[in-house]
Amino acid sequence: MSPAEATARPLNVALAMGPGVGRRVFPPQRLATVTEPLRLLSPDPITDFSTPEARRLLEETEVLLTGWGCRMIDGAVLAAAPRLRYVLHAAGSLKHHVGAECWERGIQVSTAADANAIPVAEYTLAMILLANKRVLQIGRELHRARAAVDPEKLFPDLGNYGKRVGIIGASKIGRHVIRLLEPYELEVVLADPFVTPDQAAALGVELMGLEELVASSDVVSLHAPSLPATRNMIDAGLIARLRPGATFINTSRGELVDQDALLRRLEEGDVFAVLDVTTPWVLPADAGFYTNPNVLLTPHVAGSLGTELERLAASAIDEAYRAARGEALRYEVKAEELAFTA
Amino acid sequence: MSPAEATARPLNVALAMGPGVGRRVFPPQRLATVTEPLRLLSPDPITDFSTPEARRLLEETEVLLTGWGCRMIDGAVLAAAPRLRYVLHAAGSLKHHVGAECWERGIQVSTAADANAIPVAEYTLAMILLANKRVLQIGRELHRARAAVDPEKLFPDLGNYGKRVGIIGASKIGRHVIRLLEPYELEVVLADPFVTPDQAAALGVELMGLEELVASSDVVSLHAPSLPATRNMIDAGLIARLRPGATFINTSRGELVDQDALLRRLEEGDVFAVLDVTTPWVLPADAGFYTNPNVLLTPHVAGSLGTELERLAASAIDEAYRAARGEALRYEVKAEELAFTA
Ligand SMILES: NC(=O)c1ccc[n+]([C@@H]2O[C@H](COP(=O)([O-])OP(=O)(O)OC[C@H]3O[C@@H](n4cnc5c(N)ncnc54)[C@H](O)[C@@H]3O)[C@@H](O)[C@H]2O)c1
Ligand SMILES: NC(=O)c1ccc[n+]([C@@H]2O[C@H](COP(=O)([O-])OP(=O)(O)OC[C@H]3O[C@@H](n4cnc5c(N)ncnc54)[C@H](O)[C@@H]3O)[C@@H](O)[C@H]2O)c1
Repeated sequence: MSPAEATARPLNVALAMGPGVGRRVFPPQRLATVTEPLRLLSPDPITDFSTPEARRLLEETEVLLTGWGCRMIDGAVLAAAPRLRYVLHAAGSLKHHVGAECWERGIQVSTAADANAIPVAEYTLAMILLANKRVLQIGRELHRARAAVDPEKLFPDLGNYGKRVGIIGASKIGRHVIRLLEPYELEVVLADPFVTPDQAAALGVELMGLEELVASSDVVSLHAPSLPATRNMIDAGLIARLRPGATFINTSRGELVDQDALLRRLEEGDVFAVLDVTTPWVLPADAGFYTNPNVLLTPHVAGSLGTELERLAASAIDEAYRAARGEALRYEVKAEELAFTA
Repeated sequence: MSPAEATARPLNVALAMGPGVGRRVFPPQRLATVTEPLRLLSPDPITDFSTPEARRLLEETEVLLTGWGCRMIDGAVLAAAPRLRYVLHAAGSLKHHVGAECWERGIQVSTAADANAIPVAEYTLAMILLANKRVLQIGRELHRARAAVDPEKLFPDLGNYGKRVGIIGASKIGRHVIRLLEPYELEVVLADPFVTPDQAAALGVELMGLEELVASSDVVSLHAPSLPATRNMIDAGLIARLRPGATFINTSRGELVDQDALLRRLEEGDVFAVLDVTTPWVLPADAGFYTNPNVLLTPHVAGSLGTELERLAASAIDEAYRAARGEALRYEVKAEELAFTA
């Protein structure tokens, strides 16, 4: 018995998330690996806190592992969960299900947002490399022409060398993107009002104002959270300043961008966009983004999907083991952080 | 004056490459940075060794910086170049322009193949990440449907987690791919008859037979050189063993693959391919690869292009400075290596 195990206390664990999410994030083979000191009260996630079965589980629950679509954990839920001490989320944002009452009662809250940031950063890294090299545009031209294509004639400045990548937001995702960019010979610059030049230097990037970043980068990648202050932050004025040939990547949220201004600029034909997120989530069928040759749309796939859900489950379950061993949570979120995080 | 400069000897440098290549790889602003102890005899590359002007330059040349399309440096050229001691190539393969006579006369030969390997590895890394996540397939479906698309319904197993990437050939490119894959939670396996299990372990990958690699990898990426022994190495039998859902990436040479067998397997619809190289280089307009929805063709763009040519020039010029300082070349190639390199 290791010292950690010696001091571990059993903790009753229940699951809560939207219908169908449990099967994806906590499939039976994953739950089968959850062992002492964690005691799983039921393999079936609570989807509605008001049912008798949910009430019975909540009565005993000390750790609630939550997932996408978990209902709001408000005063009424907490009243039914007298032993609840941990809400550990197996996804990113806490805003839709963790009420202020949780923190007020001293419940410790954590998120798998860092684990969820990894695939978004991976998507972004791949798109940056392909954008600088114009790989997808050139490939499409080859499929269309079915004949010799001269890449440098199409795009004289192509290449992943001597290019500037502008990262907006040293968020969890932004930091992973910066880390993944390290092996490449690209200059990485950052705009983030919450980061000091010293912190930027520690990240290995140069801090600059948003306008300078947008106007000077070959690729601009948006990683700020969706907050009142960030709504429309990429406005028409900034979009006009994108360099000819620049690629704008958005994996954050559509509402951070003046989408009409972006489409107008794209229709001028001199910039490119990779958009994993839009407003609304699913664009109407006649939206110009679908047909513009310089746009690559993806349907919100950058975050965790498929096998990547295992990483979210592992992150939340690891937190539960830390709780049982009496260790500090690794990804604890304090109430006041909600004001400036995603 | 640094100690290195103190011992440096002047060396006369000339350029030799195909028409138009000089402007791309050694543009005037790059040549302007070449200073003592290197003495550039002419900014204009030799495109034909037999002209009077070429003869005049060769008479003085100690270092020949070569590029794509350089004519064969054979006995006749060497006879006209009595002071030649270094042939430093600003591209990859030496096979078309460095004759055996060069080594026989003790001329030191080096290549920028390692610098040229970097963009190929970057292209491959991006394609691996997008392939595991099915990003391009899902994006295309969104552009087609112009409506909600459920990625996990299309591809239940998508994701860059718990996947196996099979690298064929720990060549210069293959090694860079292995290095670039380090930050990701992917299992990397290698097939290469010239690598020992210990060497593979030092690279952080598991060595396995080609057949096992092909049959068990989610992405198979080909990085072997084109040699008599590798012609058709990815034959019909191996292609039949690709896992359903696997992606085959070829950035090496078309002749390493049984292309008809690959197309037949692709037409079954259960595997994907990313092909930067084919046989012939430009496929006929009716080739099935152009229209198969599971194929992404690119026209030999993975190697150095555009701004990436600066890296090739820098690599060759750095070698010239090493020569002038009396240091060993960093990327020297011995005659016997031609038998098993690209
Ligand atoms: N596409 C997807 O699948 C997907 C998945 C996960 C998250 N997201 C989105 O990605 C974005 C980033 O998520 P996260 O979890 O990394 O965010 P986060 O919560 O870690 O971001 C907080 C940080 O953003 C920075 N920031 C705040 N305001 C800023 C501003 N005005 N300008 C620049 N930087 C600012 C600050 O450094 C702050 O600490 C969010 O919009 C999130 O909704 C998308
Ligand atoms: N797509 C492009 O733009 C582009 C650019 C540069 C090179 N290439 C091609 O990429 C390939 C790799 O180039 P490189 O310079 O990295 O090669 P390299 O010369 O470094 O390869 C030599 C190594 O390949 C390995 N090898 C030899 N035979 C093998 C076999 N049968 N199976 C597995 N491994 C074997 C050995 O480790 C050997 O040391 C070549 O085919 C080259 O022509 C393509």
